[in-house]
Amino acid sequence: MAPDEFEVIARLLRPLAKGASESLGLMDDAALIPGRPGYDLVITKDAIVEGVHFLPGDPLDLVSRKLLRVNLSDLAAKGAEPYGYLLACAWPASRGWDDRARFAEGLAVDQKAFGLNLFGGDTVTTDGPMVFSATMLGWVKTGAMVRRSGARVGDLLQVSGPIGDGWLSLEAARGGLAGLPSESRVRLADRYRLPIPRLDLGLAGATASADVSDGLIADTGHIAAASGAGLEFDLEDLPVSEDARLWLAAQPDRAAALTALATGGDDYEIVVTAPKVLPGFQRIGRVGEGAGVTVRLNGQPLKIDRAGYRHGNEA
Amino acid sequence: MAPDEFEVIARLLRPLAKGASESLGLMDDAALIPGRPGYDLVITKDAIVEGVHFLPGDPLDLVSRKLLRVNLSDLAAKGAEPYGYLLACAWPASRGWDDRARFAEGLAVDQKAFGLNLFGGDTVTTDGPMVFSATMLGWVKTGAMVRRSGARVGDLLQVSGPIGDGWLSLEAARGGLAGLPSESRVRLADRYRLPIPRLDLGLAGATASADVSDGLIADTGHIAAASGAGLEFDLEDLPVSEDARLWLAAQPDRAAALTALATGGDDYEIVVTAPKVLPGFQRIGRVGEGAGVTVRLNGQPLKIDRAGYRHGNEA
Repeated sequence: MAPDEFEVIARLLRPLAKGASESLGLMDDAALIPGRPGYDLVITKDAIVEGVHFLPGDPLDLVSRKLLRVNLSDLAAKGAEPYGYLLACAWPASRGWDDRARFAEGLAVDQKAFGLNLFGGDTVTTDGPMVFSATMLGWVKTGAMVRRSGARVGDLLQVSGPIGDGWLSLEAARGGLAGLPSESRVRLADRYRLPIPRLDLGLAGATASADVSDGLIADTGHIAAASGAGLEFDLEDLPVSEDARLWLAAQPDRAAALTALATGGDDYEIVVTAPKVLPGFQRIGRVGEGAGVTVRLNGQPLKIDRAGYRHGNEA
Repeated sequence: MAPDEFEVIARLLRPLAKGASESLGLMDDAALIPGRPGYDLVITKDAIVEGVHFLPGDPLDLVSRKLLRVNLSDLAAKGAEPYGYLLACAWPASRGWDDRARFAEGLAVDQKAFGLNLFGGDTVTTDGPMVFSATMLGWVKTGAMVRRSGARVGDLLQVSGPIGDGWLSLEAARGGLAGLPSESRVRLADRYRLPIPRLDLGLAGATASADVSDGLIADTGHIAAASGAGLEFDLEDLPVSEDARLWLAAQPDRAAALTALATGGDDYEIVVTAPKVLPGFQRIGRVGEGAGVTVRLNGQPLKIDRAGYRHGNEA
């Protein structure tokens, strides 16, 4: 039976809001964000759906942490400092007190880990799957937010860490990757359930930035489109994890395998352009004339679309 | 078949964002809200679910307008000036281009009516009912937001308009209220689908304020709890519409009928406390010692709980 919403607010949610006057104790119609002189506010809003973005059996404390983390990854990409969030939850009536409590536990853990507070939101009932959305707020110094639109010809294209683990980890969480050692599969599945937003990076000097959530090729495509520039990289230059290296070694078609890693998404690394290589980043390519993304394999252009790759010119 | 999300963004959503640089053309990871010296930001987030907050057959342009309006009502209660919003939509794959287009049309109409722009958000797929949430932003002068927590003993309790039409209009939209003339039923059903946020009111001088969304008794209860004060009113002093007056006249149990109007919710009028009656408001009661809400009928206390009312002392 669905728990009493007032009790959920009082016992599970209000404790998540008590650290911040912005929340007004979750006792008001709205949250109040005082102006912060010298800063701009960065706001992002991502939603996750049971059966689409997380698996029906996933522990709900990991689901709520994932919800915060996919939103925090957007802040990381913008060079913003995490501040607080609003939360909308659509719960089926079959999800009782224990489910709500476990979800709130996950929020508490990651609020502490990332310096967040709950500012407000809404809880509603649905007769469909669970749907959760977070509206995440962060601060950047006035005018300092790194956009997707600033890439300039001659800049170096760089990523903050391994590409493709997001895709591999979804495969692992679904029970795939049978050829890999079980410790690799467990490590990858954990990464799927609990991505790590790269808030540890400094973006000073970056001309453009995005997080790798749709897949490296798609996200570099977003930078290319917003910047009106052409981005180029070679699949052999992508950093990959030890687990991905093991997996790659067993694949018969290396071009197809590298393409899968670069299109899979959910890596939550950061991709930037900058005149110099930034600390914590690794160069994978460059910004050139033209438009869109040019993907190469050992120097040869690959044409990549939804059907896969073929030798050709433009992703 | 589900339409292509990139085409939905490009053709339906980007036009809703083009009036505001905050949206970065919906081409970035996040929205950028520049600081506004001398102002605080007010943020509210409400979600609506098909079959719960709107009826499956409701026209989707009215659904999207209702989504904006229930959130705008929270801004109205806080004395905030509408600014912009982020939107998260969970669409079933069965909802195609025409549904998305009609939803976007409603957003465009009310963006114009209320001076809003779309700043960002997320679109996801669900195999359950439609779920939509808006995160609504507004500005108030620094320190000027009217909270729920400021009611003081001796203040007058006031509302901005008729109470109970929210509940009656839901009944009408469901095909009820057979005893009323058809023009009343149509007028009420329209009000259910398209509430009017009371952004036209000035709240200068108000010590506490809330919108009447949960029902007058619940919402005055929220003010009482946040303020640590007791609120008192008499059901016979509530302003009601001409349609409600017609309906009331036909009810055998006047106390039960007035209680239904005062508990039903979705009125989207504003309830305030203030030392004097504010322009556009009507006095219905007062703030006294004690706690909670005391509801009377012709001077006699009524005890009201989920089961209905009885003669007694505390709501």
